[in-house]
Amino acid sequence: MINIVIDGFGGDNSPHCILKGCENALKEKQDISLSIVGDKDKLKRAADEIKVDLKNFNIVESNSIIKSDEEPSKIIKELKDSSMAVGLLELKCGNADAFVSAGNTGALAIASSTFVGRIKGIKRAALAPVMPSKQGCFILLDAGANLNCRSDMLSQFALMGSIYMQKVLNINNPRIGLANIGVEKNKGTDELKQTYEILDKLNFLNFIGNIEARDVPLGECDVVVADGFSGNMILKSMEGTCIFLIETLKDIFLTSSKTKISALLIKNELAKLKEKMDYTEYGGAILLGISKPVIKAHGSSDANAIKNAIFQARKCVVENIVDEISNNLSKMSEVLKHE
Amino acid sequence: MINIVIDGFGGDNSPHCILKGCENALKEKQDISLSIVGDKDKLKRAADEIKVDLKNFNIVESNSIIKSDEEPSKIIKELKDSSMAVGLLELKCGNADAFVSAGNTGALAIASSTFVGRIKGIKRAALAPVMPSKQGCFILLDAGANLNCRSDMLSQFALMGSIYMQKVLNINNPRIGLANIGVEKNKGTDELKQTYEILDKLNFLNFIGNIEARDVPLGECDVVVADGFSGNMILKSMEGTCIFLIETLKDIFLTSSKTKISALLIKNELAKLKEKMDYTEYGGAILLGISKPVIKAHGSSDANAIKNAIFQARKCVVENIVDEISNNLSKMSEVLKHE
Repeated sequence: MINIVIDGFGGDNSPHCILKGCENALKEKQDISLSIVGDKDKLKRAADEIKVDLKNFNIVESNSIIKSDEEPSKIIKELKDSSMAVGLLELKCGNADAFVSAGNTGALAIASSTFVGRIKGIKRAALAPVMPSKQGCFILLDAGANLNCRSDMLSQFALMGSIYMQKVLNINNPRIGLANIGVEKNKGTDELKQTYEILDKLNFLNFIGNIEARDVPLGECDVVVADGFSGNMILKSMEGTCIFLIETLKDIFLTSSKTKISALLIKNELAKLKEKMDYTEYGGAILLGISKPVIKAHGSSDANAIKNAIFQARKCVVENIVDEISNNLSKMSEVLKHE
Repeated sequence: MINIVIDGFGGDNSPHCILKGCENALKEKQDISLSIVGDKDKLKRAADEIKVDLKNFNIVESNSIIKSDEEPSKIIKELKDSSMAVGLLELKCGNADAFVSAGNTGALAIASSTFVGRIKGIKRAALAPVMPSKQGCFILLDAGANLNCRSDMLSQFALMGSIYMQKVLNINNPRIGLANIGVEKNKGTDELKQTYEILDKLNFLNFIGNIEARDVPLGECDVVVADGFSGNMILKSMEGTCIFLIETLKDIFLTSSKTKISALLIKNELAKLKEKMDYTEYGGAILLGISKPVIKAHGSSDANAIKNAIFQARKCVVENIVDEISNNLSKMSEVLKHE
C-alpha cells in the first residue's frame, strides 16, 4: 500500500476540492491509502457539505494554515504547525511515501528542503511543472525555486528531468534542451556555457543542445533546463499568452450570429483543445531533488487536478524515481570524474 | 525631408521585399527620401523583376553582405563594407536621419554602438520590439542585446521605453513594469531590487512595480523592462506559444466537414485576429539608446513589414525621440542626485 499525505488546507478551493479529489483518487486506485492534514472539525464540516465519507481517510490534525500570500520562510518557525508543515513532517518520519499540496509554493520549496531534505548529492531541488506542447508535453526545471543556478545545479536538473519523463511519463530517451538565447554552443552566460560542456559529456543522457524559448512550446525537446528566473519567465509567458489568445478567440466567437454558429459547429473540438492545454492533466509540479516525492498542485486546483496530483505522486513512488535519481547521480559523477 | 537609409540586403526576402517596401512607403509619405544600400547591379536586376523604378531612390554602393547566421562581430572589421555597415556609416556621417535593416540582429546591435554610438549618458542600447497584448501592445526592452544588466542600465531602459511609447505610439503616461518572478518589492535578484528602488524614486515616470511574465501578454503594462536574457525568454516564449496555438487551431478547423464550415463562417474574424497578432504592424524592433534611430525589421519581413519599419523610423525622427531621451536622462540624473 502506498500512503500519500495531502495538505487539506492548501489552494483556493480547499478543503472541499481536496476532499473530493481524494475521494475520486481512492475510487480509481486500490493500491493507495490517503492521509489528509488539517483541522478535524473543519474537514468534517466540509466533508458533510459535499457528502464525502471521511472514514476512508486517515486524518492528521493541524490547526493552522500558511496562506498563499504569506512570507514563505514563516513555515520554518512560526507556522511549523501548519497543515503543510505537518504533512511534510509525516513524510519525513516515514508515515507517508509522498506529499501533495496546493498551497504556498515558496513555503513548500523551503520546507521540503528543510524538513524532508534533498537526495544525497543533489545541490538544489527544482520546481518542475509539466506543460503541454505541440508535440505532447515537456518538463520545465527550474520554474522558480532557485533564482541563480550554477552549472552543477543545472546539470543535475537535466538528469532529474530526464528520469522523470522516462519513468513517470514513459518518454523514451527524453530530449534535453538548455534554454538559451540562441542554439550555438557559445551562446549565453558563462554558467550556460559550462552547463553545455558538462551535458555534452554525459553520453547516457540525450542532450540536444541549446534551445530557444520559441521552440519550447513547439515541443522541440522533452526536458527544458533553465535557472529559476528564466524558467519562470518561460512558464508564465506561455501561460499568459494562452489566456490572451483563448480569451481573444472567445470574443471572436461572440461577434455575431454567424460566428456563434461557427462556435457551435466546432464546440467539441475546442473542448479537446482546452483539455490539451490543461496542464493539470499531468498533475502538479514536482519538487525534483527532494528525498521523497513532493508535488505542488496548482493553487486553483479543482478536484480533478488534485486527483491527478495524487496519481502523479503514486507513480513517482511506484517508479521509485528518488532511487533512480540517486543511482544516475553516481553515474554522472563517475563520468565527470574520468574526464 | 527626412532621409532614411535601408539595408538592401538584410533579411530572408531581400532585396525584392526591401525594394517593394520602399516603393510602397514613398507612395504613402511625401516627406521622406530613401537611400538603399547594396550591390547596384543586383538591385537593378531585382527591381526590374518586380517592376520597381529604382530612380525614386538614392542607391549607396556596397558589394558585400553579412549573413544572418554569421558571427556578429565580423561586421566591425572583415565586413565593414557590408550593406549593413555602409548604411550605418551613412547614418553616422550625417547623410541620413535613420536606418532600417532586416539583417543579422547581433551585428546590427554591435555595429550601431560602434559606428553610430550611443546617446551621451546611455550605458547600453536595448533591442526593443513592440508586441501585441490583450490591451493593445507593449514595448519589451531589452529583448536580447545585453545578457546581464545592472540596475542603472535597466532604469535607463524604463525611461527610453516610456518615451518611445509616448512619442511614437501615443500612449499617455505609459505604465512601466519590471519583469520579475513575483510582484512584491523584495522579489528577484539584487539588480532587480535596486532597479525597483531607482524607478520608485522617478516620479515623472509611471512605474507600476514588478510584473509577472503571465501578465505581460495580458497587457498589464505598456513598457516591460528586463535584462536581455529574460526579455528574450519572454519574447520567444510568447512567439512560440502563438504559433503552437494557431497551428493547433488550424488543425482543429480541418478535422471534419463540420469544422470546415465553422472555419468558413469565422474566416473574416480570424483574419482580424491574425492581424492583431502580427507585430510587424508596429514596425521592427528599435535599438533604443543609439544616437540616431536604428530599426531592426524582422528577418522574415515582407514588403509591408519593411514599409512599416520605414514609417516607424520616420516617426522616431519626426518626434525627435533621441533628444527626448537625452533631455529626460538629465532629468533622471537630477532626481537621483538629490536623493
